This record gives sequence, C-alpha cells and structure tokens, in this order.
Amino acid sequence: MRKVSIVGATGYVGIELMRLLHQHPEVEIKDLVSKSSAGQRLVDLYPQFRGSSLNEYQLIAVEDFEPAASDLIFTALPHGVSQNIVGELYGKGTKIIDLSGDFRYHDVEIYQEWYGVEHQYPELAKKAVYGLVELNREKIKEADLVANPGCYVTASLLGILPLLQFSKADLSSIIIDAKSGVSGAGRSLKQNLLFTETHNTMKAYSPGIHRHSSEIEYISNQFLAGEYELEPGELSSDKSAAEKRTQILFTPHLVPIKRGILATIYLNLKEKSSEAEILQLYQQAYNQEEFVEVLVDELPEIKNVAGSNFAQIGFKYDQRTDRIIIVSALDNMLKGAAGQAVQNMNLIFGFPENTGLKATALFP
Amino acid sequence: MRKVSIVGATGYVGIELMRLLHQHPEVEIKDLVSKSSAGQRLVDLYPQFRGSSLNEYQLIAVEDFEPAASDLIFTALPHGVSQNIVGELYGKGTKIIDLSGDFRYHDVEIYQEWYGVEHQYPELAKKAVYGLVELNREKIKEADLVANPGCYVTASLLGILPLLQFSKADLSSIIIDAKSGVSGAGRSLKQNLLFTETHNTMKAYSPGIHRHSSEIEYISNQFLAGEYELEPGELSSDKSAAEKRTQILFTPHLVPIKRGILATIYLNLKEKSSEAEILQLYQQAYNQEEFVEVLVDELPEIKNVAGSNFAQIGFKYDQRTDRIIIVSALDNMLKGAAGQAVQNMNLIFGFPENTGLKATALFP
Amino acid sequence: MRKVSIVGATGYVGIELMRLLHQHPEVEIKDLVSKSSAGQRLVDLYPQFRGSSLNEYQLIAVEDFEPAASDLIFTALPHGVSQNIVGELYGKGTKIIDLSGDFRYHDVEIYQEWYGVEHQYPELAKKAVYGLVELNREKIKEADLVANPGCYVTASLLGILPLLQFSKADLSSIIIDAKSGVSGAGRSLKQNLLFTETHNTMKAYSPGIHRHSSEIEYISNQFLAGEYELEPGELSSDKSAAEKRTQILFTPHLVPIKRGILATIYLNLKEKSSEAEILQLYQQAYNQEEFVEVLVDELPEIKNVAGSNFAQIGFKYDQRTDRIIIVSALDNMLKGAAGQAVQNMNLIFGFPENTGLKATALFP
Amino acid sequence: MRKVSIVGATGYVGIELMRLLHQHPEVEIKDLVSKSSAGQRLVDLYPQFRGSSLNEYQLIAVEDFEPAASDLIFTALPHGVSQNIVGELYGKGTKIIDLSGDFRYHDVEIYQEWYGVEHQYPELAKKAVYGLVELNREKIKEADLVANPGCYVTASLLGILPLLQFSKADLSSIIIDAKSGVSGAGRSLKQNLLFTETHNTMKAYSPGIHRHSSEIEYISNQFLAGEYELEPGELSSDKSAAEKRTQILFTPHLVPIKRGILATIYLNLKEKSSEAEILQLYQQAYNQEEFVEVLVDELPEIKNVAGSNFAQIGFKYDQRTDRIIIVSALDNMLKGAAGQAVQNMNLIFGFPENTGLKATALFP
Repeated sequence: MRKVSIVGATGYVGIELMRLLHQHPEVEIKDLVSKSSAGQRLVDLYPQFRGSSLNEYQLIAVEDFEPAASDLIFTALPHGVSQNIVGELYGKGTKIIDLSGDFRYHDVEIYQEWYGVEHQYPELAKKAVYGLVELNREKIKEADLVANPGCYVTASLLGILPLLQFSKADLSSIIIDAKSGVSGAGRSLKQNLLFTETHNTMKAYSPGIHRHSSEIEYISNQFLAGEYELEPGELSSDKSAAEKRTQILFTPHLVPIKRGILATIYLNLKEKSSEAEILQLYQQAYNQEEFVEVLVDELPEIKNVAGSNFAQIGFKYDQRTDRIIIVSALDNMLKGAAGQAVQNMNLIFGFPENTGLKATALFP
Repeated sequence: MRKVSIVGATGYVGIELMRLLHQHPEVEIKDLVSKSSAGQRLVDLYPQFRGSSLNEYQLIAVEDFEPAASDLIFTALPHGVSQNIVGELYGKGTKIIDLSGDFRYHDVEIYQEWYGVEHQYPELAKKAVYGLVELNREKIKEADLVANPGCYVTASLLGILPLLQFSKADLSSIIIDAKSGVSGAGRSLKQNLLFTETHNTMKAYSPGIHRHSSEIEYISNQFLAGEYELEPGELSSDKSAAEKRTQILFTPHLVPIKRGILATIYLNLKEKSSEAEILQLYQQAYNQEEFVEVLVDELPEIKNVAGSNFAQIGFKYDQRTDRIIIVSALDNMLKGAAGQAVQNMNLIFGFPENTGLKATALFP
Repeated sequence: MRKVSIVGATGYVGIELMRLLHQHPEVEIKDLVSKSSAGQRLVDLYPQFRGSSLNEYQLIAVEDFEPAASDLIFTALPHGVSQNIVGELYGKGTKIIDLSGDFRYHDVEIYQEWYGVEHQYPELAKKAVYGLVELNREKIKEADLVANPGCYVTASLLGILPLLQFSKADLSSIIIDAKSGVSGAGRSLKQNLLFTETHNTMKAYSPGIHRHSSEIEYISNQFLAGEYELEPGELSSDKSAAEKRTQILFTPHLVPIKRGILATIYLNLKEKSSEAEILQLYQQAYNQEEFVEVLVDELPEIKNVAGSNFAQIGFKYDQRTDRIIIVSALDNMLKGAAGQAVQNMNLIFGFPENTGLKATALFP
Repeated sequence: MRKVSIVGATGYVGIELMRLLHQHPEVEIKDLVSKSSAGQRLVDLYPQFRGSSLNEYQLIAVEDFEPAASDLIFTALPHGVSQNIVGELYGKGTKIIDLSGDFRYHDVEIYQEWYGVEHQYPELAKKAVYGLVELNREKIKEADLVANPGCYVTASLLGILPLLQFSKADLSSIIIDAKSGVSGAGRSLKQNLLFTETHNTMKAYSPGIHRHSSEIEYISNQFLAGEYELEPGELSSDKSAAEKRTQILFTPHLVPIKRGILATIYLNLKEKSSEAEILQLYQQAYNQEEFVEVLVDELPEIKNVAGSNFAQIGFKYDQRTDRIIIVSALDNMLKGAAGQAVQNMNLIFGFPENTGLKATALFP
C-alpha cells in the first residue's frame, strides 16, 4: 500500500480527495494537514466520515507534518498559498500533485498577469507537468510535480482539443460558454454564495477576463505548438497547426446545482464538413480513453456524470451556419479536480488508471 | 372596467395571466375557458387563488363561451391548436392577444417549415401584429390581433436589436446561448421534466434547430428590412442595414430553476469600439422604456427580474477578442409571456403601459 | 398619502417591506435607513428596484433620519439592537411597527431568559401590542407600537389557536414540527447557509429550545388567559380554558427552499371528535378573515402561498390514534414578516386590511 | 464470483442496484430484466453507465430470463406486480431479495387492508424474512426470500427500536414526522412530481394513512412480541415489553431534494430520564453496527448520508416537556432500498457486510 497525504484537507477538494482515497484499494491515507483545523477530529468537521476508515483521523498542522513519510502528497490549497507549501515540500523524496493554479503555466509571466500574484518558484513552474491525463499521460507517469488542471479548463480542453488540429476549423472563432455548479466556488463565506442568493437564479460573471480563460488558451496554444499529444493520435490533422495560435473567449456562469460543469463550445468551420467527419475526430482522440465518452447523436447532461470521474462529450454540426456546437460535461469535484488528481496518482504509481475511480454517476 | 377573458386558462401561462389580471385596476376577468377543466372550480385546480377575487370562478368550455361579451381575449394554447380558436374568434368584435407561436410569422411558409404544422389562416397571420412592445408599440395600439412573442425570443431580441443597426457589428457572427428555467416547458407530463430528472442537473438541447431560433432570426431580419423601429431611435446606425441580413445560431439550455431566461449573446465587431459607444447604443434604444433596464458595468441575474415584468441587459466589450458579450435576463412567465401580454393589452386599451405591472422581482 | 419609513432597510425583511410599500396605493416611502449602507443607492445594492419608483432612493444613516417626518416607521433590525432604536423613536409622534423579537413579550423576564439579552425598555414592552392581526385586531388599530410576530410563530399560532379553547383537546400534547425555507435565516454570512451546504439536504435544529418555542407558548397561554380573542369568536369553547395552560414542543427544520414555512402540528384529543366538528372550529375562527384560508379535505402546500400574504390551513383527524394533525403554511417573508407588518399598518391607518396585499402566490 | 440478476432493472431502485453491483468486488451482474425496455441497450436509457463494465448490457424480457443461471435475484417491481414474479421465481434454486412491499407482512390480511391488493402467495409471505439487517441478521443469512424494507420504514424503525423496550417510554405516544426527497416517489409520470410543481415547495401528504405507517407499526409490534432482536442486545429493557403494543402516527412530507429521508420522531417519557441514559440505549443497540451511527450532542443532516449506506441518528431529551426527539437520516435509495438489499445479499453470500458499500456521502 502506498502512503498518501493531503495538505489542505478540509476544503471541498480536500474532502473529495479523502472520499476517493479512503476507498482506494491500493493506497492508505497517512496524514491530513490543515492550518485552520489542526487538532480537530475529521468526523467533527465532516460527519459523513463517521463509521468509515477515517473515523479516528485527526487533522494535523503543517508544522507537524513529516512529508518524507508519504509517497505522494496532494496539495489542495488556494493559489498563491500553494506555491509556497509546494516549494517547501518539493525535493524531499515524495511526489506532489498540486490542485491549485500555481504550477499550471510554465511561463510564470502569464500566471502573474492573470492571477496578480508574484510567483516564488518559477523554476519549479517550468518543471511541473500539466496533469490533463488525456493530453499528457506519458510525462505524468514520470513527474515529480503534477499541476492538476481546474474544472472549467478540463471541461473546455477535452471539448476543443480534437478540433484544434482540424484543418477546417477556424481557430480564431472559439467561444466557450461554461456553466458551473456552486461547489466550484469553494467553501468561502461570500454573500453571493448564500443559498438564498444563489438558489433559483443564475448569472454570467467575468466574461472574457476569468483566470481560467488564460489557462485554456495557454494549454491550447502549447498543444498547437506540439508540446502535448492527444493519444492515440492520428487526427485528420492540419500539418500547419504547429504555426497556428488560437484565441478563445470564455464566459463562465453560476447555476444552482451542487456539482457539475457544462461547457457549450462554438467554433466556425472554414469549409463544409459533416457529422461523420467530426465524430471521427472525437473517436480517434478518445476511444482508448477510460474517462472520456464521446456521444453519438446525443448531448451530455450533468446528471450522467456527477458523482463520477467520467467526462461526456457530444456535438452538433449546424450546416445552416457552418458551426460546430460541442457540449462537454463533467463533475467539477471529480474529473475537474480530485478525480483527475487520483487518475494522475494512479499513473505515477503504475496502477490501472481507473483504480478507485469506477463509480458511475450518482443518479437519481 | 374593460372585460377580458382567457382561453386556455389552466396552463402555466393562463394562470400567470390570471394572477396579473385579477389585480389589474382597470380590467375585470369575464370568462376562464378550458377544454380539459370545464365545469371545475378554479381554486380546486389552483389553490393559490383561494381568498382572492377569483375565489368563485368556474372554468367553462369553449362551446359555452360568448366572445362578444369580452373586450379582449387572451389565447394561451399550444401552437397548432391556437390558430383554429383564434380563427374562429377573430372578427367578432373583440381584440385578441395570442400567446402561441401561430401568428408570429407573416410568412406562414417559414412557420410551416419550423413548426411542421400547416397554417389554416395565412391571411390572419399576415395581419397579426408582432407584440414585442419595444419594437412595435404604435402598431400594437391599433391591432386587432397581437402575436405575443415567446420567452427565448424576447430575451434574445431585446439583447441584440440595438446592435443590429450598428455599423461595426458583424451580423453573421451572432451566437445566442440561452438558459431557461423549467416552467418554460409547460405543465405536460414528460419524463425529462420530473423533479428527479431535472434537479441538480442541466443540459443543452436542440442546438441550432430550436423553433425559436427561426423566430429570432425572422424578426431580426424584418427589423433590418425596416419593418420595425426601436424607439426613440437615433442609433449610430448603419444606413445600409436595410440590405443586410443576419443569421443566428441559437442554443437553448435547461437549468433547474423555476422561472427565468438568461441569454448570453456573442457578437464579433468588425472594428474597434468601446464600452462607452456600445452603452450609448443600448441607452438610446431603451432609456425611454419602462421595462428594459440597461446596466452599466454590471451583468444581470435572474433573481433581479423573476417575478417582475422587467428585462435587464448588461454587456461587456472584450477588447482582446473584439467581441461583445451581451447578457439579457427576464422572467419567462412575465416579460417572456403573460406580462408582455398585459403590456400589450395596456397599449390596446390606452392605459399607462405599466398598469398592473409595477411589481419588482420577488427576492429573496 | 401617508408617509412611512424603514429602519433596517437592507436586510431581507427590509427589502420585502420596500417591495410591498412601493406598490401600496395609499402610502409613500419617505426614508430608508441603514447603518451599514448609508450613502449608497438602493439599486446598487438591490438591482431588482431598477426602473421602479425607488430607482433614485439613497439610504441614509440613522443620525440623519428625522422620525417626525414619517407617519409610521417600520423597524426591521436584529433583536437586541431593535429595542434601543425603538426606545429612541418612541414618543416622537409616529407609529412604530417593530419586526424584531424585542417587544413580543409583555413580561421581559421571559424574553431575557430565552434571548439572553437584557431588555432596556421593559415599560415599552408592556405597552407594545402584539401584531397577530387575527388575534388582536382591535388593539392594533389603536397601537403606537406594534410587535410584529415572527414567521414560525405566526404559522404555529394560526394553526393551534382554534383548538386551544376546544374542550376535547389535550393541551399538554401539542407538538409542532416546523419546516422553514432558508430566507428565514437572513442574509448573514454563516457557513451552514452557503448554497453548497444547504442545497439538496435538510436538518432539524434546536429541538425544544428554539426561541420561537417560548413565543408560541407565551402567546398561547395569554390567549388561554383571555388576553386575546379570535374573531368572530363563538368557538365550541371550553369555559374552563382560562385556567388552563399549554406546554408546547417545537422543532424547527431547515429545508432547501427560499420562502415558506410549513408547520405540522400534532394534538391529542381526550375524547372522540369528527372532521366536521373540527372544521367548524376553524371556520368559525377564520371565515371572516381575509388572509387565512381553511382547506376542506386538502392539505396546504408552500407553492400555494409563497409570494402572497395568505396562510392556508388544513387538517386531518386520525380516528385510529385520536389525534389531530394540522398543517399550516405561509410565506415567511410575507404573512410571517413584512406582509403582516403591512396588514398591521393598514389597520393603524384605517385602510382596508388587504390594501397592497392582494397578490396571490407566485406560481409557477 | 457470484452471479446476480435484477428484475425490474430500469426503475430508480433497479439502476441504483446496478450502480452498486457493477462495482461490487465479489459479484457479477448476469441479467437485467425489464418488461418495458427489453431489447434496448442499458446505456441508451441510462447514459451514466457509458464507459462502465455495463457498457454493453442489453435489457431482456422476463420470458427470456433463466433464473437458475443466477445465484441471487433482486426484484425491484411495483407492489402487486412483484408478488407474482417472485411467486414464479421462488423455489428454482436461487435466492431472492424483493424490494417491494409484497412480502413484508407475515400476515397478508394487514397487507391486503393497507395495500388494497389481494395477495396471491400468502404462504410465501409467511416464509419471507424481513430484511432490516440490524434487527434480523441471523435469519437473513439463511433466507431464501428476503423482504427488503422500504425507506420510510427503515429510517423510522432504526430511530425508534432502541426505545421500544425502554421501560420509561410511553409507547402510545410515538409520532413520526418524516420528510422525503422526491426520488422516493419513483419515475412515474405524475403532475405533482414535475420539477415546476415540486421545486421550492413542500407539503405533507397522507397523514396517518400512509401504507408505510402500517409497516412501521407492524414490525414494531412484532419486535415487542419478541420476534426480532436488536443486537448485541442488553438494553435496559422492560421485561413486560412482550405484552405491550405500540400505536404510531406517521406523517410523510415531500421536500425538494433528490435523495434522503429525515424522520423526526417524538416520544413521551413516563418518568424523568437523562441524555446519558438514552444515549446508552442507542449505543448498546448500534455500536457494533457497521451502518448505523449514533451521534452525540449533534443531529444528523441528509448531506452527511446521501450517497452512502449509512444511517445517522441523533436525539435530544427535552426535560421541559419530558419528551425525546429522535432524528434519523438516511439515503432512501441506499440504506432505504438498494444499499440495504446489497447488505442483505452480503449476509446471504457470507461476504463481509460492508463489501461494496464503503462509500461515504457524496458531499459537497
């Protein structure tokens, strides 16, 4: 049994990691580290763990945490905070999977521009391996530090990647209209996250200027530049793609559900195509993938993925306007955060990729 | 007191009309007509009317309905059904406001193509006056038959109209990503409308091929052709607009709220603009309007309009991608259906436009 | 037009008062007083008022508030805070309707015991008139200071009052299991009120020890002691009731809806009765009442009252166990708070009791 | 690997069984039997199973089902229907776990009275073993036919059983006020189950006369008569309990959540007790139990159990009124249906009781 620990154990992502890991057949949870709740029993904070194997766990302070005793550490901390903790933990003989935004950009200048935070470990950011499994599987297996992508980004990239190398695609036309459940905003006390303010309503926010906008575009352009590879490859690809860049408009929305992201993506075609041709692109990209389901003549719904690590992707080719509409759905806590992190851990440890991740959506 | 009746009184739109009309200071409800519930007491079907002035009303069959006794009749029936009832009621000395899709197209061929229903009264469809007040106020005042627009269409048109005549707008680029509450689907027994199927989930449906897509595009092109006029006018308009046409991609989504439509609209600019310039377009179009609020540096939320007849519109100019994102929000039962119908009635009867419609959103 | 002001204008109860008052045909809103938001425009805090007659209102500080310029002042403040403000406003020539718990007990010792707050104005508490209209109409008409009851209490008292004087009722057996929507908890930043913590879940809290428990029992015993009278009276009453006392067990629950309280009340009978006999009790008590609807062979639902000032009450006599189950439903923001306050205001000003309160439930 | 099949595979309980069983390490799903959907692929009906090991399953008709090929069959059918299927399957060499109400009463007369259905297999009903594990573990291990209890009943019985043998309890005073999520009503097309009719509202229904009322009372009285035993026993028990009977008033409510039952239970004491004494009763009853968690100084919430097979029980002793308030919470689809059925299967097959049931609640 490999030993794993969580730093930042009491946020929503932290407890989702616990939920997955305590049922994982090949790992054992070593330490749960929390600044705000050190010394408390986990079950007093999160009574859903009563009766589970975590029943007796107590949270410890980072000062009392011995990193070397764990084979792998998940850091589930706010951006800005995470880089410092990771900086200290790195190089002490354990693998690290970081779930914040701090190590997702090799180029910290872009990070600094969009996050408004100075990066203390630019060298580490360069070394970090981007943890979108479907894009970067081989490098993840060897990584010491994985930068786990966020929920909006995973939903968006899985939706657009197969089209980025498609010769008929107009890469300047991509618009992503994403809708997120409220758990994505975390557990912080903000008036606009109160039930009475959020139930039975919805809104758009930060159109064009949301941080995740930059991550989607950054990784897309790295992909166009040949840095990543969709497996097993063989897209009807555009050879000149490597010289291309894409610019993406991203608008997030808040909807009154707990979990789930639905990204509706619009892309213009430069010439006529067909549903069959586009389907082939998606099937080539994902048919070997455990956790990405391509739907035929059907669009995904959140209820079919929430509670699972699966993403579902459907699309429609609108002949009338020569546009493709892609809909990508996943659970922001799972494939969009903790589930993907466990998928990364499985790769690092050499476990079958779906170990501990076989649950299907909790429906009804 | 003017006398009004409702045919199709027991659907969601019908009871919303009742809710408005029974509090309206200048009208009296004459008859409530329902095929399925004739002979029943209203309060036994809809207990929320107990204790109101509708307490003793009984629903009557259409056979027992004497149209001439009403000054105005609202028809709130399914499309296809409505045209026949309206056809019979028309010309009997009463005004008619039809809330179905049957009379919204002067050109019944387009109707027939998108609705898959043959139109029995093409002459009447030509005479019907499109009931989007902000676009067509003067004609409505004189109308015998008003075709009340639907909810998706009202939210979309109010959002895009000020830009259609804008010389910098690329009219071929309009994408509307609309999200609707579930009441818009009516009260029919469909599995996908069950609470357990709809709560805590969301989905896109009918991308590019939804009926309302055609209505948005049809009215937009009529507007570009000069058939309608935004008041008070004086947009920084494109003189050649009359020769232009727009093609619109519309994707509706179902979200788990009761009431409300949020339309997020994307449009490319052909040259640089500014937030100030665009704000001016919207303010010119709507500053005299009672029920359309243009927001400055702020995006609308459903909770600020649900329960009211107000639409709220905000926008963002994304310099990076030279696109405008417009967000338009309204209550699908009110400004998107029954409220707009009462607004039309007020015009026809010469009442102040906001009579009976002063309620602000029910929040919290 | 009478002039009214609101002190504590930006809490949920404050804005609900505004929503009602700005449409009220006989009053004019004079001042909106808020400590935290003085100097701000109302529509910047609550955009739902854009376009309404409150469009230009600005909130003022209590220091800048001239009470004598208003005929009536609503105080919508937290308990403990309210008593001091009311203490200062009282006697300056204006009527006051206080929506806090501070003046609901003539006997401040009970208040102090349950609220853990010392009362600074015990004399005023003795003079205050309890504002449950159906129980105390005549005194309210003459009152200078009305203590508006809370939402749980109104739902509970309307449900049990007709039975308190019933000779067959076992007054020691009353159990109230009440379920509330989340708006009742106000707008404060508490983790357990976040959407993600409250949606799709429910819980009981403070069983037996909730403050409102004491208010329900206190007013019930005052009623049994003859202090109040249900109109028009003539219950099949127990002449010895005046010597009786009741003890009530009250358990509140939080459910994921925005507005509404449903109180399910259990009471044992000492001898056999019948549905007809019990119905008569309720009809005698409420048939003349504008805002209390007694249902026959039917139980109330929140959707039939939410958005209205109506309470609906249904019941079932369970012969098998000789118990009565009463279900009482109302909107906690309206009949349970702001609506009742306006009803009280109408009495004080001599307006018809339902002026400005005719709205039926917002359904769907 | 044991082979199991599901008859009635496409209802909510059927698919919840699948969700559990396809991840169960010791069983293999053999056949999925459905009358309405025979011949269809499972993933076309329930897309959440795409990518899982059920990806290729096709539903078969009952006529094509070979019972003897399965070691155990789950029947998840409507009452009335189930008895006939079970009657035919019984005695063919496979174990059966029936999830309907048809075999929960040894005495079919009570069944017939409350269900209004004649029982075709009274002898089988007598032999069936009641499947509330905590009450009947030893008999279940040997059973050929298990009658799996329903959701309301499991929540209620787990809450009251420890008190039934308590000498200070007034057994005539038990009132159960239960609140259920909507999935408990199944997938049938009823107007009152539509999202728009159920969201943001709540109601009581069938007070005193709900079918599950009779099951709760029937099993309680069997327990008082010594037919079942709470393990490990040693309650501070009332020796005369065997002669006692209880009569229970049960009122169900519908609340707008997907999964979960919260039962708030009221019971009078005949003499003073203490929280410590009552806690001891519950701890004795459940401390050895895998799936029943007794909370100390805390009440349960649905979010801590939904998605898991755990029940959580908390209580409060109200000294003022000498009553105990017990709150029992569980997931109606899991501990209240499919999870409990798998727990029963584990017992029958001799697997550790929590095999395949270790998941904790899905929160957030």
